[in-house]
Amino acid sequence: MSAIDDFEQMWRDLAPVGRSASSGGYFRQPWTSAESELRAWFAEACAARGLAVETDGIGNQVAWWSPPSASGPGVLTGSHLDSVLDGGAYDGPLGVVSALAAVDVMRERGVTPARPLGLSVFVEEEGSRFGRACLGSRLVTGATTWEQARELRDRDGVFLADAVHAAGLDPAGGLLSLEGVGTFVELHVEQGRDLVDRGTAVGLASQIWPHGRYRFDFAGQANHAGTTRMEDRHDPMLTYAMTALAANKQARLAGQRATFGRLQVEPNGTNAVPSLVTAWLDARASSDDALAEMVEAIERQAVDRAGRDGTSLTVTAESVSGSVAFDADLAARLAALGDWPVIPTQAGHDAGILSDAGVPTAMVFVRNPTGVSHSPDEHAETPDCLAGVEALADVLEELTR
Amino acid sequence: MSAIDDFEQMWRDLAPVGRSASSGGYFRQPWTSAESELRAWFAEACAARGLAVETDGIGNQVAWWSPPSASGPGVLTGSHLDSVLDGGAYDGPLGVVSALAAVDVMRERGVTPARPLGLSVFVEEEGSRFGRACLGSRLVTGATTWEQARELRDRDGVFLADAVHAAGLDPAGGLLSLEGVGTFVELHVEQGRDLVDRGTAVGLASQIWPHGRYRFDFAGQANHAGTTRMEDRHDPMLTYAMTALAANKQARLAGQRATFGRLQVEPNGTNAVPSLVTAWLDARASSDDALAEMVEAIERQAVDRAGRDGTSLTVTAESVSGSVAFDADLAARLAALGDWPVIPTQAGHDAGILSDAGVPTAMVFVRNPTGVSHSPDEHAETPDCLAGVEALADVLEELTR
Repeated sequence: MSAIDDFEQMWRDLAPVGRSASSGGYFRQPWTSAESELRAWFAEACAARGLAVETDGIGNQVAWWSPPSASGPGVLTGSHLDSVLDGGAYDGPLGVVSALAAVDVMRERGVTPARPLGLSVFVEEEGSRFGRACLGSRLVTGATTWEQARELRDRDGVFLADAVHAAGLDPAGGLLSLEGVGTFVELHVEQGRDLVDRGTAVGLASQIWPHGRYRFDFAGQANHAGTTRMEDRHDPMLTYAMTALAANKQARLAGQRATFGRLQVEPNGTNAVPSLVTAWLDARASSDDALAEMVEAIERQAVDRAGRDGTSLTVTAESVSGSVAFDADLAARLAALGDWPVIPTQAGHDAGILSDAGVPTAMVFVRNPTGVSHSPDEHAETPDCLAGVEALADVLEELTR
Repeated sequence: MSAIDDFEQMWRDLAPVGRSASSGGYFRQPWTSAESELRAWFAEACAARGLAVETDGIGNQVAWWSPPSASGPGVLTGSHLDSVLDGGAYDGPLGVVSALAAVDVMRERGVTPARPLGLSVFVEEEGSRFGRACLGSRLVTGATTWEQARELRDRDGVFLADAVHAAGLDPAGGLLSLEGVGTFVELHVEQGRDLVDRGTAVGLASQIWPHGRYRFDFAGQANHAGTTRMEDRHDPMLTYAMTALAANKQARLAGQRATFGRLQVEPNGTNAVPSLVTAWLDARASSDDALAEMVEAIERQAVDRAGRDGTSLTVTAESVSGSVAFDADLAARLAALGDWPVIPTQAGHDAGILSDAGVPTAMVFVRNPTGVSHSPDEHAETPDCLAGVEALADVLEELTR
C-alpha cells in the first residue's frame, strides 16, 4: 500500500468510532469507551509501523521512531483524538493520522531520521468533559498539577481521578516525559477560512490568540410565569439575553470573538420565571489587552442591565490563556520549504501549551473549505489532507536531518 | 383537636415531602415516590375523618362525605398535590388541606350536608413532568384522551403510560367519574398581588386568562467559537436572545404576560456556536385575541431577526387554552357570603378544565403577601390560610344546604 492508501485506510478505520447516528457528529469524550477504542487504534497503527507505544498514567501516548543512527534532541509530532460534543472528524485526528502517514511518506522516500522522531496523542484537548482545555499537555508540562486536575468534576459530578481510573489507567504510573524533545510540530485542520482566502492548501502558525472562559451567573427570583406582573419580576433570563447580544456586538465591532454557547437554567420550567441563568462566555482577542478590554466591556453592560432588571451578576474567570507566539525563526525556516503563509489562529492547541513550556514549536494548518469546525459539518478535502501529509513529511525531514 | 389545630398539623405533616434540602423548594412531580407519599397521606387524612378514598387508574383521588340524608347533585372541592420543579408549598396543597379542614369546621359547626360533599385531588396539574398542564382533570373530563396522553414523554424519554404503571397504578382500572357532581370549588393561594392591593385575605375568581405554551426551535450552524469570524456565523443564540427581549417588551407594553423560562441548547459546549436553541414561550393575555396578537408579534420579530442572523425558526403551539369564564351567578352568590372581591387569574387550574366541561365552578383565592409563586419563596400567612378555610366552609355549607 502507498502512503496515500494508508492515509485513506486510517481515515476509514476511524470514521465510525464515537459517531452519533443521528447527527453524524462525534462524541469522543476523554476516558469514555470511544476514547479507549481510539487509544487502542493508535497503538495498533504504531505497531503496524514497528513502533512501540508508551501510554502514560492518564492516557497520553507516544511512539518513538528512533533508528540506531539517530541521536540528539528528538522531534515530536501529533495531535489529539478527543472531540467536542457533537464535533467533527478532523479536529485532532487529522494531526494524528497525518503524523503516521508522514512516517510512511518518509519511508517511501527512503529517509532515515538522524534524530529520534516521536508520534504523540494528548488526552482531553477540548476540555469537553472536565472544562479544562489541553489538560493532557498541561499535566505533562506542569502547567496544571495532578492535585488540581484530580478534583475537577464532569457534568454528572464524576471526579476526574475516578474517570481516569475507570478507564483502566493509573496516574501513579507517571506522565509522558518531554525530556529529549527538541521540537514539537502539530498538524491541524484550519478552523477558519484564512487559507481559503489565500487560495493555498497548507499554512504555518504564527500565534494563538489569547483566550478566556468566563462563567456568568445571573441570579433573580423564581416566580409564576402567568400571574407575576412583568414589572414585578426579577428575571435573570432578560439580563442574560441582553448580555449575549452585547457580547456579540462588542466582538463584531472590535474584530474579536465572543460566544455564549453553553447555558444552564434553574429551575428550567416552562411556567416559571427562572431563579438562575448560568452562561459561559468564550472570548478571544488578538492581544491580552484587547481580550481584557472586551470582557470588561461585556461585564459592564451586563451589570448595568442587571441593575435595571433587579437581578445580580457574578463573573468567574474559569480559565484565561495569554497569547502564544510560536518560534518565529522556526516558522520562517519551515515556511520556506513550501512557500507556505504564516497565519494566526484563534483556537487553543496542545502546541500552545508546549510552546509556553519552552519547547520550540510549529503548527501546520490544512485548508478547511467552509471554515466550519466543532460541528458535524467540519470538513477538509482529501487532496488538501494529502498535501498536508506531504508538507508534514517535508517539515519532519527538515527537522530530523 | 380543633379544626385550626388540624390544619396546622396537616401542614406540618406535608412540609418534608419532596422538599429539596438545598433550595427549600418542592419537587413533587407526578408518578414519583414523593407523589406516592402524598397520595398515601391524603388517603390517611380522609380515613381519619371516616371518609373512604377512591383512587382511579391514573392516581386522581376522591373521598365522598355522603350522610344517609344527603341527596341530589354533589359538591366537589379540592386541588392538586404536585408541584413545579423547585416549587412552593402552597400551590395545590393549600386547596387540599383547606378542603379537609373545611370538613372539620363544618362538623364543629354541627352542619350535616344535604348534598354529597366530595374531596378531590387531581394528578399532574402543573404539567411539570409531561408538559401538559391539568392532565388529570383533562383525562377525567375527556378534554384529553388516554390514547393522546399515554404517548407523552418526560425529559428522560419515559412514556407517561410507563410512568403510571411504575407508580403501581393501572389506567385500565378506569377514571374518576364526574357523574353526580353538580358544582366544583377549588381553593388556591393567589399567585399575584391583587388581594394585597385590595387589602383582603380572600377573593373569588371571575375568569382565567387564555394561556399558551409555544416551542420555539431556533436552528443555526454549529461552529468553533474561537476561529469562526463573527460575520461568518449562523448563531441561533442571538436570535433567541433578541426574541426573549422582544417577548418581554411586547408583554409589558400590552399589560399581558410572556416568559421564556425553559431552554435547551445543542450541543451546549462552551467553545461551540450552538446548532440549535429550543426555548419555550409561556404567554397569557386578557382575551383570546390579545393572546394570538401578542404571540404573532413575538414570532414576527423572531423571524425578522432569524433572517438577519442566517438562522431559521419553527414555532409549535404545544398547548393553547382559551379564556375560561367561571359561572358568574355562582361567583356573585358566593361572594355575597363574605363580601369577597371577584378577580381574574392568569394561572391555569383544574377548575378551568371542569368549568370548560360544563360543571358550574368557583374558585376561592387566599392572599399571597409577595405574589411570589412557583418558587421556594411562595408563601401565605397562617391567619390568611385559616380565613380561607372558614370561607371555604361557608361556601360548602351554602352549596350543600
